[in-house]
Amino acid sequence: MAELQLFGTWGSPFSKRVEMGLKLKGLEYEFIEEDIKNKSPLLQKYNPVHQKVPVLLHKGKPIAESLVILEYIDDTWDVGSPILPKSPYDRAMARFWAKFIDEKCIPTLRKACWSVGSEQEKAKEEAAILLKLLDSQVEGKKFFGGDTFGLVDIAASFIAYWFGILAECGEVQILNKDKFPNLCEWIDVFTNNSFVKEILPPKDILTEKFKALFQAAKQARTA
Amino acid sequence: MAELQLFGTWGSPFSKRVEMGLKLKGLEYEFIEEDIKNKSPLLQKYNPVHQKVPVLLHKGKPIAESLVILEYIDDTWDVGSPILPKSPYDRAMARFWAKFIDEKCIPTLRKACWSVGSEQEKAKEEAAILLKLLDSQVEGKKFFGGDTFGLVDIAASFIAYWFGILAECGEVQILNKDKFPNLCEWIDVFTNNSFVKEILPPKDILTEKFKALFQAAKQARTA
Repeated sequence: MAELQLFGTWGSPFSKRVEMGLKLKGLEYEFIEEDIKNKSPLLQKYNPVHQKVPVLLHKGKPIAESLVILEYIDDTWDVGSPILPKSPYDRAMARFWAKFIDEKCIPTLRKACWSVGSEQEKAKEEAAILLKLLDSQVEGKKFFGGDTFGLVDIAASFIAYWFGILAECGEVQILNKDKFPNLCEWIDVFTNNSFVKEILPPKDILTEKFKALFQAAKQARTA
Repeated sequence: MAELQLFGTWGSPFSKRVEMGLKLKGLEYEFIEEDIKNKSPLLQKYNPVHQKVPVLLHKGKPIAESLVILEYIDDTWDVGSPILPKSPYDRAMARFWAKFIDEKCIPTLRKACWSVGSEQEKAKEEAAILLKLLDSQVEGKKFFGGDTFGLVDIAASFIAYWFGILAECGEVQILNKDKFPNLCEWIDVFTNNSFVKEILPPKDILTEKFKALFQAAKQARTA
């Protein structure tokens, strides 16, 4: 058995976060693809509380929740590139914005894509406010933490990649260069980064998956 | 101006978390009482994203979000008692459970107190499942981390203190010794700890506040 095993799915932005963390450190790991519709007994054993991917298994000990796993990786291996900055204040800022992305941005962006009518309009307005805050955070910087790729970039990868494909499939317009120039520039840098490109799931397969989901949601609404 | 200023409110469990962290380290700070109904320009300046207490100001630099602040305090001052454990795995577990308390337990417990009818019954059932998970976490231990008081105890202080008063005022029965013996034993240890007792807000004033809020909610429903 490998020292490090990652239970994830090929398309999950949260699994991919952990892959980015592991690869930043140059760590070898065995990837175990989970079927979310039919969760394995191992996933249920290792993450009984949430029964979700990702779970990192290190020497048989499980860790769940992507941001918790990223901190664990950074705490455990002082090799490769750091995930969190060194200074306590910069670490606090990274944690603050990663939390903001998880608790505010991602749920609102998802709602803006999947809801309809007035609920969707409201979510789109809220999303614009949240994205503006992120936009100002990355102004004049290559990455959220400055010159180096780190925790907030990893946390924001849903916004950089998945959200764009989701919005395209759902025909939702929110994120554009006029309103969010800094964020769009960061997305450009992020998605063209060779390290990141190797990890992101293929756009065509994600597109196919999302289109089918939108189709099913539409059918369910009109059924 | 003091090197450390804490913007909080006397009754907020989240402000009190930060006070526990600061006092564990033996740090002096100036407490600035905020009026949540009429937020000060300083609070809005220092926490523009959420405009919420607590905010810790250290040498003029603001940090928001109680769990982020606690990590900052632990990262910055290697004095007094540690807030997080030393080993990366124990740190990950502490972060996991603190996150679980914030994202799952507190919203569900609040809903179980403030909602009515079938929504309340559902929240009570969910709360029981979540509390059972916490109960098993503290089985055979004095504190969540073992023998020493730390992050998860601080995070769970809402459950130990505020929730009991809230449930009493709202006449909601969830947390009892028969169903959650370990959690109730921990609550007993926690609330009788002399360090904690000095920080918790007075029960009579909290009771008065919650009773008035329940009364107002009842009136609003029957208006």
